Amino acid sequence: MAERVCGGSRGKSIRCRAAVCRRPSEPLVIEEIIVAPPMPREVRIRVISTSVCHSDILFWRIKDFAAAMFPRILGHEAVGVVESVGEDVNEVSEGDTVIPTFLAECGECRDCKSPKSNLCSKLPFKSSRTAPFMPRYGTSRFTDLNGEAIYHFLSVSSFSEYTVVDIAHVTKIDSGIPLSKAAGLLGCGVSTGFGAACRTANVEPGSTVAIFGLGSVGLAVAEGARLCGATRIIGVDVNEDKFEVGKKFGLTDFVKAANSENKSASESIIEMTDGGADYCFECVGMASLVQEAYACCRKGWGKTIVLGVDKPGSQVIISSSDILTTGKSLTGVIFGGLKPKSDIPILLNRYINKELQLDEFVTHEVTFEDINKAFDLLIEGKSLRCVICMNDQ
Amino acid sequence: MAERVCGGSRGKSIRCRAAVCRRPSEPLVIEEIIVAPPMPREVRIRVISTSVCHSDILFWRIKDFAAAMFPRILGHEAVGVVESVGEDVNEVSEGDTVIPTFLAECGECRDCKSPKSNLCSKLPFKSSRTAPFMPRYGTSRFTDLNGEAIYHFLSVSSFSEYTVVDIAHVTKIDSGIPLSKAAGLLGCGVSTGFGAACRTANVEPGSTVAIFGLGSVGLAVAEGARLCGATRIIGVDVNEDKFEVGKKFGLTDFVKAANSENKSASESIIEMTDGGADYCFECVGMASLVQEAYACCRKGWGKTIVLGVDKPGSQVIISSSDILTTGKSLTGVIFGGLKPKSDIPILLNRYINKELQLDEFVTHEVTFEDINKAFDLLIEGKSLRCVICMNDQ
Repeated sequence: MAERVCGGSRGKSIRCRAAVCRRPSEPLVIEEIIVAPPMPREVRIRVISTSVCHSDILFWRIKDFAAAMFPRILGHEAVGVVESVGEDVNEVSEGDTVIPTFLAECGECRDCKSPKSNLCSKLPFKSSRTAPFMPRYGTSRFTDLNGEAIYHFLSVSSFSEYTVVDIAHVTKIDSGIPLSKAAGLLGCGVSTGFGAACRTANVEPGSTVAIFGLGSVGLAVAEGARLCGATRIIGVDVNEDKFEVGKKFGLTDFVKAANSENKSASESIIEMTDGGADYCFECVGMASLVQEAYACCRKGWGKTIVLGVDKPGSQVIISSSDILTTGKSLTGVIFGGLKPKSDIPILLNRYINKELQLDEFVTHEVTFEDINKAFDLLIEGKSLRCVICMNDQ
Repeated sequence: MAERVCGGSRGKSIRCRAAVCRRPSEPLVIEEIIVAPPMPREVRIRVISTSVCHSDILFWRIKDFAAAMFPRILGHEAVGVVESVGEDVNEVSEGDTVIPTFLAECGECRDCKSPKSNLCSKLPFKSSRTAPFMPRYGTSRFTDLNGEAIYHFLSVSSFSEYTVVDIAHVTKIDSGIPLSKAAGLLGCGVSTGFGAACRTANVEPGSTVAIFGLGSVGLAVAEGARLCGATRIIGVDVNEDKFEVGKKFGLTDFVKAANSENKSASESIIEMTDGGADYCFECVGMASLVQEAYACCRKGWGKTIVLGVDKPGSQVIISSSDILTTGKSLTGVIFGGLKPKSDIPILLNRYINKELQLDEFVTHEVTFEDINKAFDLLIEGKSLRCVICMNDQ
């Protein structure tokens, strides 16, 4: 039988608490679950802190998503410590500090070996299924006390005291680094925005940037664009309070989306920039905003980069003539075009060297019991990131 | 009164023959017209040879296009000799050999000065109007013998013994170069395809290329990809004969579009390339083919480049999830991303040095009287380019 004792738990099931999503849009239920030992190439992690990202909310809310996806343990932005490892895991060992990521880096496939891709072919990211099982085996490591399997989410499922993650999804962090609770943000939001600006777009010094959506991802784009030397960073949001928050990440201008002046955000940006921004980033996940972003990126060289996760089935529509005659480009990127194992340590170093702001993204902190408050804060636009601190065990 | 005499025609109207499109889809009518002298910054050109491009056919056919666009003189791929120049033209003088282009290069605007754009801001390309007038003045230089104005087309209107073109749309060719009738192809088709491969896509050695549509533009893409060192160049067309034609431009594989095996071209290409082509070029002008091209470009780094001119109003639809999670990019380009005055001389030199094939694109030749045969040959897929040789005057 599973035990709550951590010492000597290697090879055994662990009984611990998790915040389980039993039905869409209903508060998560903190309950005891059983976490199976890691299979070969898997790692069991004790979660230290985790945070809520908009993708958690998106998939928590979706009602027409296959019913079979519940009960589920959400969460994919976290930092933790390795509790035990399965066979054939040499990269990390018990006690190592790690950041799990929804994106894999096997290090061996054509994509992992190419500097041009971060989309591991061996354990590919599949948005339509959002990884309800362990990627290598297609099975779950979670069961509830009735013996029912609980689905994983995005190969991480960090809303649990313990989780099991494939080694390809685990980045080891130098234990010598004083661990910030914000470090987990490198597991999704901050890396996504920062990488999109610095890696995917490769923002040039002196350029103009427009950012649609000023959550953590959008502000991490601003942070990246600022460090790349962009001179004008325009934020677009429905919430005007975001401008003040965004200034510390480099925002220089603000456009209120859906304003009352009968002028679209793209029209405002075209006017402000005398023709359009050099780079536009869509960080909300809304096809109409992708189209707005595309509309106001500069002809000739403008790039629109999509970072936001939209509802399954949504489509972006662009005029053929615009594609042909404007010379603009449209692309999308997950995890900011970064390779987790290769790039997270680099970003962490930039944070240690006080170049990259990370703590500034953490606006709130709650205990695990209050995880639903973290959902509320994000939904209400009150938080950038609310860190959920797991209890000491 | 206008004269047919060429000597001493400077400053006077010229009466000459033109192939006028009086109604959509009806044979062009060779008739005498009056060509006004060039205004300041304009050049009057005696056309030596011209050819028919699919864009001529597209706009010759469109019935729901504003009726006011007829009568019109089509044609935008040509080579000619300067007959006279307007005021403030220092770049060319009488007797110079020139290639007129639908795209301007003023040399002074932000775009012309940037290495990243070929979309002159001073005399911008406007696809919706397709330049029915002289770009700088918004008036016509053509009138028929009843005194009715005749519309220009794409700032060139080369289906006339004489035409007037803005100096920003004129590239001077070194008169020391033995002039090939194929040189005019650098005014549109060959530059468009070649530039898209070599400049816009910047095809890497060893890469895989898929080309949708094997007309002159598509085969010029192949020629460019071949010169860039692509190792696999897959052509897609409804006409299987194009494969043989295309081999001389570097095609290595062929996929029949709309084949009977119930497999789409994109599915075939994904299979053949084990995941997709590194670069896909759409050279037809059909939104569904843009989507096919996008579908079969390689995740992680695949680029889809649109070159084909679609009907006004058509739209490309792409799944939001595909944009976000595949890392593919979509862009379009006119004139292959090349700047006419800067790049045509470079391409011409590569032709003189026998690197770039140009004569191979000319499969047919007709006299001006037979210009409608050139239309038929292209519509029937029998020609790549049919050069129309104007009579000696």
